[in-house]
Amino acid sequence: MRRFTITAEAALRANRDAAHGHGKLEVLPKIAVASLEDIATIYTPGAGFAVREIVDRPEALHELTAKDNTIAVVTDGTAVLGLGDVGPRAAIPVMEGKAAMFKLLVGIDAVALSVAARDGDHLVDLICALEPGFGGYNLEDVAAPSCFRVMEKLAGRLPIPVLHDDQYGTATVVTAALTNALTVTGRGAGETRVALNGAGAAATATVDLLRRFGVGDIIVNDRDGIIGRGRDYPEPHRAALAESTNADNRAGGLTEALRGADVFIGLSVADQATTEMIATMRPGPIVFALANPIPEIMPEAALAGGAAVVATGRYDYPNQCNNVLAFPGLLRGALDTRARGIDPAMCLAAARAIAAEVGAADLAPDRIVPTPLSATLYPAVAEATARAAVAAGLARHDPGPGWVADNTRRLRDQVARRQQSLEAPSRAG
Amino acid sequence: MRRFTITAEAALRANRDAAHGHGKLEVLPKIAVASLEDIATIYTPGAGFAVREIVDRPEALHELTAKDNTIAVVTDGTAVLGLGDVGPRAAIPVMEGKAAMFKLLVGIDAVALSVAARDGDHLVDLICALEPGFGGYNLEDVAAPSCFRVMEKLAGRLPIPVLHDDQYGTATVVTAALTNALTVTGRGAGETRVALNGAGAAATATVDLLRRFGVGDIIVNDRDGIIGRGRDYPEPHRAALAESTNADNRAGGLTEALRGADVFIGLSVADQATTEMIATMRPGPIVFALANPIPEIMPEAALAGGAAVVATGRYDYPNQCNNVLAFPGLLRGALDTRARGIDPAMCLAAARAIAAEVGAADLAPDRIVPTPLSATLYPAVAEATARAAVAAGLARHDPGPGWVADNTRRLRDQVARRQQSLEAPSRAG
Repeated sequence: MRRFTITAEAALRANRDAAHGHGKLEVLPKIAVASLEDIATIYTPGAGFAVREIVDRPEALHELTAKDNTIAVVTDGTAVLGLGDVGPRAAIPVMEGKAAMFKLLVGIDAVALSVAARDGDHLVDLICALEPGFGGYNLEDVAAPSCFRVMEKLAGRLPIPVLHDDQYGTATVVTAALTNALTVTGRGAGETRVALNGAGAAATATVDLLRRFGVGDIIVNDRDGIIGRGRDYPEPHRAALAESTNADNRAGGLTEALRGADVFIGLSVADQATTEMIATMRPGPIVFALANPIPEIMPEAALAGGAAVVATGRYDYPNQCNNVLAFPGLLRGALDTRARGIDPAMCLAAARAIAAEVGAADLAPDRIVPTPLSATLYPAVAEATARAAVAAGLARHDPGPGWVADNTRRLRDQVARRQQSLEAPSRAG
Repeated sequence: MRRFTITAEAALRANRDAAHGHGKLEVLPKIAVASLEDIATIYTPGAGFAVREIVDRPEALHELTAKDNTIAVVTDGTAVLGLGDVGPRAAIPVMEGKAAMFKLLVGIDAVALSVAARDGDHLVDLICALEPGFGGYNLEDVAAPSCFRVMEKLAGRLPIPVLHDDQYGTATVVTAALTNALTVTGRGAGETRVALNGAGAAATATVDLLRRFGVGDIIVNDRDGIIGRGRDYPEPHRAALAESTNADNRAGGLTEALRGADVFIGLSVADQATTEMIATMRPGPIVFALANPIPEIMPEAALAGGAAVVATGRYDYPNQCNNVLAFPGLLRGALDTRARGIDPAMCLAAARAIAAEVGAADLAPDRIVPTPLSATLYPAVAEATARAAVAAGLARHDPGPGWVADNTRRLRDQVARRQQSLEAPSRAG
């Protein structure tokens, strides 16, 4: 099934380029500057006119600065990919890569900020202090349970949208993939029982979004077994899961959770399930084994257990569920409406747009999600998010139907033109 | 003397460009990304290899991320241009313009950060927390006396170079201009008496640098009159000035300070001196009236009083003393040597390189400083700064003589190529 292989050597080479500067991002002026007049216009004294204009008319901030198209991708380095608490320095390559995706896919200028934060409150304080220059934030790779408190505090204090991608970015992609997997297997959401392994950042948000999507029952299993009522959970997010999931209050572990379930969603770590366990699910089950880089069960093993649809986070198998399908459009839609936040209704709208991107004619067990190369995906997701922001009353600006999709296409084209003189990483020497 | 005029309309148009996005900066990937393989290489899972490499070998941070070529231009908005405490939002156009200059002139990727800081300690805390991703900082438009305490605390805590441009950037340009003005008027530094108006951030650093440069005597005048011994100064920086300046312990105001002085340096506000006051200075005096946008005395009035050399901060008169001559090369030299800081010896070396850029054949009363369009200025300033960092023991990396100049030229050429498809601000519709 492999179409290509990413080697460590090629990946490191993409970050290490002495000729063009190490790392993956650069900050460029959008304007040609060739004369003293140009310098005087964009620097001093010219910039002083813009300063005065904003002093006189605060709303001019949105016309005279890059704020509304600029976000920060922020991490404290406590939960980086599958690698854990590697700290803010080692996290930088992921932040730079993510920022590059924002520009390439939806034209958002994203600054990578890796923060040596003492704790969640420190991170919140810093994010709030930097708000003047940013139109939104993508919080990234912040460990649970700290991330829940961070997001709650930010929602109360920040007037701009924040996506914790590991929570609602993941939840959006899972919901999109499940939408199409249910169609392919002829299931209705209300009659579907989901067994979810993991109770971290991604799992908690996914439970929330799947419940809003209408999934009948969800059973969450984590390191202490199935979460249910009648037990004490010191962490509020697990206590909340105990109330909102597991209608029959089952007990046991993943084996018991999977028995008779329609869907297995793994948001945990490698090697959690076996062919035998998949065989105990309802006929033709759906298996999303999303742990990176090694899934909870390899696709071959899941298929051997009777799985009708298998998805992973891996690029080298079909049905790659990667957040890159969701986060660019979510932020684009939020920025273009100057939304006060990103709520679950916006994520659900984005999930539906992602799912709809796979046309009925193309839909198949090994084709339930689109690819990030789709030219139509991001305009559609951004537009759907924007309309949902307007509907939810979160938008401070309504550019009208269709505008956000057009803007997304226009910005993508601009970036593509700016890319023309560059070398690709896999071909670079 | 005017060569062109920057109108408010043209300046605002440079910031307001709906077609290409408002503001002046964009963040772009340095690598072409056209395939799923490219995405998997620079984002996930490819970036994970770089993360692991940095975990295993922390020094790889410098090879695999943009850190060493990336700085933040940081302000709290408390002293923006001549406009005062306008706050972090209104300050953004200046930060963006400055960041654009860093890229254009020396190839540094500069992120504009406008901070809603509660006080100086909060600003210090934030700058320290963001250090993982940055190779250096340009602190900008932070009011005195808070800036002195901020810089002292940062020097003790930050392992990377910080330039408070309003202090040592200004001091460097003033010292460069004075070097050539002394030559043009046949003066030696040791016999020169300077009268300096203002005792803020710029003035304090300028006094320090001019003393190291060897200026014989400096008299500082501010709102309470000439600073001298025998008076109580609540602010430490003014108490220090009282000890280090005014050898004869003169009293009075600017009128008394200027009488018999060789040089008038204004780092204060508009309209402080008159033709009559200039006429009381030693014959053929030097007048640097650097208040923006209206100088302490207009050039015509200074010349009428007998001034032999006149400089201002204005683009529409000869001898424009703008920090843009200094800050790009100072940071370039500091980054390329991974310097632990920027000390006065580095600034003095940069000042000498700026001065030397005006060749002996070109040196004239109306030509004492180079222009930022010079192709040779920035490589020379960066190289001189780097050599001084090595000599001072502040460099963690010595790339060898000539490397920094070559690197600066190479990066400037790259930016020039990236600029080719863009429109100029003054010509944009």
